[in-house]
Amino acid sequence: MAYFENVNQIKYEGPGSANPLAFKYYNPEEVINGKKMEDLLRFSVAYWHTFTADGSDPFGVGTAIRPWNHLQGLDLAKARVEAAFEFFEKLNVPFFCFHDVDIAPEGATLAESNKNQDIIVAMIKEYMKTSKTKLLWNTANMFTNPRYVHGAATSNNADVYAYSAAKVKKALEVGKELGAENYVFWGGREGYETLLNTNMGLELDNLARFFHMAVDYAKEIGFDAPFLIEPKPKEPTKHQYDFDVATGLAFLQKYDLTDHFKFNIEANHATLAGHTFEHELRVARENNMLGSVDANQGDTLLGWDTDEFPTDLYSTTLAMYEILKNDGLGKGGLNFDAKVRRGSFEAEDLFHAHIAGMDTFAIGTKVANKLIQDKVLDNFIEERYSSYTQGIGLEIVEGKTNLRKLEEYALQLTEIKNASGRQERLKATVNQYIIETLANVTV
Amino acid sequence: MAYFENVNQIKYEGPGSANPLAFKYYNPEEVINGKKMEDLLRFSVAYWHTFTADGSDPFGVGTAIRPWNHLQGLDLAKARVEAAFEFFEKLNVPFFCFHDVDIAPEGATLAESNKNQDIIVAMIKEYMKTSKTKLLWNTANMFTNPRYVHGAATSNNADVYAYSAAKVKKALEVGKELGAENYVFWGGREGYETLLNTNMGLELDNLARFFHMAVDYAKEIGFDAPFLIEPKPKEPTKHQYDFDVATGLAFLQKYDLTDHFKFNIEANHATLAGHTFEHELRVARENNMLGSVDANQGDTLLGWDTDEFPTDLYSTTLAMYEILKNDGLGKGGLNFDAKVRRGSFEAEDLFHAHIAGMDTFAIGTKVANKLIQDKVLDNFIEERYSSYTQGIGLEIVEGKTNLRKLEEYALQLTEIKNASGRQERLKATVNQYIIETLANVTV
Amino acid sequence: MAYFENVNQIKYEGPGSANPLAFKYYNPEEVINGKKMEDLLRFSVAYWHTFTADGSDPFGVGTAIRPWNHLQGLDLAKARVEAAFEFFEKLNVPFFCFHDVDIAPEGATLAESNKNQDIIVAMIKEYMKTSKTKLLWNTANMFTNPRYVHGAATSNNADVYAYSAAKVKKALEVGKELGAENYVFWGGREGYETLLNTNMGLELDNLARFFHMAVDYAKEIGFDAPFLIEPKPKEPTKHQYDFDVATGLAFLQKYDLTDHFKFNIEANHATLAGHTFEHELRVARENNMLGSVDANQGDTLLGWDTDEFPTDLYSTTLAMYEILKNDGLGKGGLNFDAKVRRGSFEAEDLFHAHIAGMDTFAIGTKVANKLIQDKVLDNFIEERYSSYTQGIGLEIVEGKTNLRKLEEYALQLTEIKNASGRQERLKATVNQYIIETLANVTV
Amino acid sequence: MAYFENVNQIKYEGPGSANPLAFKYYNPEEVINGKKMEDLLRFSVAYWHTFTADGSDPFGVGTAIRPWNHLQGLDLAKARVEAAFEFFEKLNVPFFCFHDVDIAPEGATLAESNKNQDIIVAMIKEYMKTSKTKLLWNTANMFTNPRYVHGAATSNNADVYAYSAAKVKKALEVGKELGAENYVFWGGREGYETLLNTNMGLELDNLARFFHMAVDYAKEIGFDAPFLIEPKPKEPTKHQYDFDVATGLAFLQKYDLTDHFKFNIEANHATLAGHTFEHELRVARENNMLGSVDANQGDTLLGWDTDEFPTDLYSTTLAMYEILKNDGLGKGGLNFDAKVRRGSFEAEDLFHAHIAGMDTFAIGTKVANKLIQDKVLDNFIEERYSSYTQGIGLEIVEGKTNLRKLEEYALQLTEIKNASGRQERLKATVNQYIIETLANVTV
Repeated sequence: MAYFENVNQIKYEGPGSANPLAFKYYNPEEVINGKKMEDLLRFSVAYWHTFTADGSDPFGVGTAIRPWNHLQGLDLAKARVEAAFEFFEKLNVPFFCFHDVDIAPEGATLAESNKNQDIIVAMIKEYMKTSKTKLLWNTANMFTNPRYVHGAATSNNADVYAYSAAKVKKALEVGKELGAENYVFWGGREGYETLLNTNMGLELDNLARFFHMAVDYAKEIGFDAPFLIEPKPKEPTKHQYDFDVATGLAFLQKYDLTDHFKFNIEANHATLAGHTFEHELRVARENNMLGSVDANQGDTLLGWDTDEFPTDLYSTTLAMYEILKNDGLGKGGLNFDAKVRRGSFEAEDLFHAHIAGMDTFAIGTKVANKLIQDKVLDNFIEERYSSYTQGIGLEIVEGKTNLRKLEEYALQLTEIKNASGRQERLKATVNQYIIETLANVTV
Repeated sequence: MAYFENVNQIKYEGPGSANPLAFKYYNPEEVINGKKMEDLLRFSVAYWHTFTADGSDPFGVGTAIRPWNHLQGLDLAKARVEAAFEFFEKLNVPFFCFHDVDIAPEGATLAESNKNQDIIVAMIKEYMKTSKTKLLWNTANMFTNPRYVHGAATSNNADVYAYSAAKVKKALEVGKELGAENYVFWGGREGYETLLNTNMGLELDNLARFFHMAVDYAKEIGFDAPFLIEPKPKEPTKHQYDFDVATGLAFLQKYDLTDHFKFNIEANHATLAGHTFEHELRVARENNMLGSVDANQGDTLLGWDTDEFPTDLYSTTLAMYEILKNDGLGKGGLNFDAKVRRGSFEAEDLFHAHIAGMDTFAIGTKVANKLIQDKVLDNFIEERYSSYTQGIGLEIVEGKTNLRKLEEYALQLTEIKNASGRQERLKATVNQYIIETLANVTV
Repeated sequence: MAYFENVNQIKYEGPGSANPLAFKYYNPEEVINGKKMEDLLRFSVAYWHTFTADGSDPFGVGTAIRPWNHLQGLDLAKARVEAAFEFFEKLNVPFFCFHDVDIAPEGATLAESNKNQDIIVAMIKEYMKTSKTKLLWNTANMFTNPRYVHGAATSNNADVYAYSAAKVKKALEVGKELGAENYVFWGGREGYETLLNTNMGLELDNLARFFHMAVDYAKEIGFDAPFLIEPKPKEPTKHQYDFDVATGLAFLQKYDLTDHFKFNIEANHATLAGHTFEHELRVARENNMLGSVDANQGDTLLGWDTDEFPTDLYSTTLAMYEILKNDGLGKGGLNFDAKVRRGSFEAEDLFHAHIAGMDTFAIGTKVANKLIQDKVLDNFIEERYSSYTQGIGLEIVEGKTNLRKLEEYALQLTEIKNASGRQERLKATVNQYIIETLANVTV
Repeated sequence: MAYFENVNQIKYEGPGSANPLAFKYYNPEEVINGKKMEDLLRFSVAYWHTFTADGSDPFGVGTAIRPWNHLQGLDLAKARVEAAFEFFEKLNVPFFCFHDVDIAPEGATLAESNKNQDIIVAMIKEYMKTSKTKLLWNTANMFTNPRYVHGAATSNNADVYAYSAAKVKKALEVGKELGAENYVFWGGREGYETLLNTNMGLELDNLARFFHMAVDYAKEIGFDAPFLIEPKPKEPTKHQYDFDVATGLAFLQKYDLTDHFKFNIEANHATLAGHTFEHELRVARENNMLGSVDANQGDTLLGWDTDEFPTDLYSTTLAMYEILKNDGLGKGGLNFDAKVRRGSFEAEDLFHAHIAGMDTFAIGTKVANKLIQDKVLDNFIEERYSSYTQGIGLEIVEGKTNLRKLEEYALQLTEIKNASGRQERLKATVNQYIIETLANVTV
């Protein structure tokens, strides 16, 4: 334990604490609806942002001051593993996630890359024996290396496709080896830059074939983790095929893949697609396809993926509302796919940022839970749609009517009375719950 | 014929003409690939923008100076019909489109509205006997009246649902009566303002039931026009259920409606959803669901539906590229769902605007056709994806491989060679075709 | 008192109140920093949204159910005045704002319009004698009437310019008559649709002349209210000349108008321009030009001016932070330039919406005040910029150095040490203040 | 000459040429309005994008295949100079631009960096003796190195400020040494990430002091090149102080810097700020501050700076319209601040991209020139604003009226007649000129 020596174990100190390196609202032992908050929220640290990234951006090189900056190659990879498990323990976080290239350096050949990975995977496995932190999901990075310049499973180059397939095969094996609870596909280069040079039909057909082969192989090796697609509309590509949940759903339906896939939904990807985070969660939930969450936030006044740590109480409240209504995330979790700002370059900021995210989700959880317990929205909605529980409305819902009957009914209507949707009132109520839920707790 | 007395019959005068009230590039008789341009492009005038709208916007009342401005009620409706057919003839346009409320005033009751509509439909039918202009599609306006404040087929109010069903029933009958070639659904209020008061699952289930009833009734009355969904992501609602083609496709697949629906794709709706026009056309084309087109353009620096007349040569070239690759639009057409700017308030501007749109599409058609004839993009793409026509690539496409075999293949790869995507070169080529295709024609 | 008979006087009931028609956080009598909250916040009702508007949008007609809907002309105008003062009293709000056409119907001529206005102004003046509610500002509507289609003070038509000048003259007289505390210019049509037909130089020169004449006339009649420009980047125009505060500042500086004008800053206009609300307030504050505020909020996922009632606690906290740092708004205030959603069409919603806005600003004020009292941000910033209080930094700030000396200094620097900007920590702190400030109050 | 051995000298072959490595529209010797096109357009190659960059993006490492990829340090820097001058000659381009760090590697200290720079500057100077290619502008990169994480001339750290000053001092000396025609400031990190930790007032005051010192030093050493500010609204920062031309103008006015600065306007920065390219050019032109142009284009459906090579004929036509109206750019030029797409990674693509950009601007120039020669827009505008050349309009323009007189005039107006703005007609005319201007040339 030497990487973050200036930071002690992060503990719950409750509201009012002036200690920046303590939880004020996230109490892992606190029970909400019969579940410990730790089990309900299933927080996860993103290996890439926290241990691999350096704070570079398109206009500047890395700024991150990290205790492992002087190392290279496998030594660097090993130091990161040591630092990671120290970090997990100090933060008391139950899960982590990684891409293959986050944990081990790529070699000159696929075989060498796999060998490097084996070394680090063995080391991680050893650490996991005594750590409480488990692997939420792993994945294969098929976007950083130049070979993926035109895509991976949608590349115009069959060699790249084959190479990608080999990477996924290995990643599935690693997932099984480390007991990953899910496996994620993010198609960072699966899309196009310009339609002028693109065979969209072939690319999507190939992508579906790729997924089917992955399903088959996972079955073959007995790796039964849910497969998750992570929608994103654009960036780095002009257009990414997994634009949003609905687009992903159309694809999965068309290619008969709905039984094997759910969605890993990221807040910042939702807003880049023009949706709210809660919208994407709702669409997945209504289709029984809410798998896991990349917990971050974007800046809707900026047009790129800022991957900020979640600090917006509205966003976490409404997200947790959907998640609680979904009866939790099952094997999924809340992975902080978020990076400290380039200007927050001290190692200590990694703790500040995760604490901010965990506290913000804890508040959101408590507020959402209270809204649900008090049936604030449920009662309003039940009343609002009550016309479908009787008479013509019930006939509609039960499929017992047709245009002729409905016209007959409509012709005798003298006046149609609607009721206010009360949006302002409902928003004020959410505010009241945000301000008062925790206040009650603290009294 | 007295409504546009200052405007004579619009004729084709060819490039170089200085007459603003003449076609310079659209020659209806010109043959492209064995089809007359008139038959290929199937232009349509949008009744609402051209004869009903007044140039009002959220900050200002109407500005349009129209020869029928002094009339009211059925007299106004009749004058518009007369003006419309004069306009169609002077513009020499083969199609028009309307919503029910565009052509006839709503009455105090549904029965009265229907009666008003019957009067005008009869009048239109009479005009159509001697006119070459046919009905591309009709639809029911289920968004303007206050009763649709919370939606029509997705309203929380079963009475509104029933009323909407009656409207669609009538519209299908009118479509049959007037020989409409398609029937369109645009769900202007089918969406939500806030999830806080919304039962999304029930609303979408109800929408699907609504569409199935419409399919059944059309079959019952022998109205066999294709049904078209018109995607739009937002405006007037915060979120519209038919966000884009992919979202519409997911919905149609889920509710077993793909056999009965295609898409009516609007350029401005595409850009509001974050897509190019050609992207939406491509997605529909790849799924054999390209039905018809709302030919307009937006302003991507503004965030609302500006519904401008199409004047962008890139947009019409790339749109026509998709349409020609689709072997045309079948029973669909190019409907100018476009309005003259509020500042273009003279009746003459209606002609200028349609001429601009028709000429712009004519140029786009010629350029796209030349690109296809010369196989400029096809050859590049064929070469670019050639690795899938042999060896490992062919095995992938034919489904004869799996992750194990692909890994074996990948392990023996020494180097993967990609080739440039040549985006800049391809864009320069498109420019060259835009500049030179018409030049050759004019020599 | 008969217009809102179902609503009683709105009172402060404090946090925890379940009464939707009561203030929970806004207590007008509560003292913050020696000022009563009522005097600090200076809330104002926007006459147009609350009494004149009907809930129409570009795709739908009005939905608002109002007790004056059956009236017309001057009778309607008078009923609205009666309703307004009942509303002001029940809401206990100290200010209101209006455009000339909000309060009185336009006549067939300017003279008739002025006469109508005189009647209503006299009536308002009479009401104001016994009401505590005062006029925060008035203005002339120079955007709704078709004559402003190409602008008012930037119209290409000198007659329109003259007409607009006459309207402003009258409005200044009305402002004086009713004791308006400010006068606002919002240039809804002062901009362009396309540069192709626009003489930008002449239009801006004319606009400056217009403002100078207004300054002169106000001086002549002894109306000494501050003049306020209200920036907005676009909508209804493609480009509005008063794009944002910085653009307005460039204009005022160029045309020597800075002594006479400040800014009226609207939250939704800020976000349409790509800025946060607090950014625009900060820019105005740093230039001593923060005049007044249009208190609303937008939806950054939508591209138009939604003019929602402010319910975002972050926005009101950060806005009030700037305002408190500015030592208040002086003669300015917080005008609710906000409209109930089209679906919130019951008169009762007007109360819900204003209560939501007032409570949200009250919370924001308390949180911002506590942040300032505790010097949370001030201390951090003081430390962060401390290098400018001594040595080379002090020489820079005092203008005692030059490039040669700075190079000499830089050449001997061995290492430059920066410190983390701590963005995540600061955001967590703001959250802690939002959650805990009111909690403490309620204990 | 060995770096681009597969590419021969690029020549003008005229329209119709099928040779991708030839100019089809850009003929440097062609005379337009008495000026050779070469002298009018003053094209410039951006050293950073063309010789330094590697095709990396936030999700992927470099892809560019360049003949100098195997080199490092000063050897690499020298090879790039050799390649650059070979490229300039083969492309026949009159100018280039660079940042200090593009041409020479940074050393461990400022002194070492300067020494490295001196070596390369001497080498460039030697090359320039026999090359026709001159230096359009140079600048200091104050954004890539971690020291600029919180800004350069607006850093909170006085050491960083001093270091930046030393860099600009050196850059001014280099500019003088190489005969740079302009000096550019792009404040890539001059802005803020969050207002929570920012002293905006101090930062802007410091920035102004910085500019004044630069002005003084340039005068001292006799470097009389115009200083140019390059506006950009955001990216990499959340908010950049030089948001757009108007914001820059407000700053320059406030700090008395207008005599020394003009603007370097980039197309993609314009659209990121919500403006068209031609808008920014117009604003600068109307204020006599149009200095130079960064010729590229963005993708308005993406939210970041894509820096694409300019291929949009509308954009180049309307940009050249402003530039020709400005009587050219004086000492400024058209610098291709544009990068080949990451997928266009072959060295040959550098030629394709520049040819595309040069041809597109050549077309735009010819079309714009014809529009001006034919007075197409001028005549329309002159007529449109003719009311200001007589009567009340003339009095307004000459400042001989006031609100009283204007009211008198307005009171006697019976009807105000506006005329259509004819936007659709004007857009069709621009299309006609795009299609026909070159056609005439080729006949």
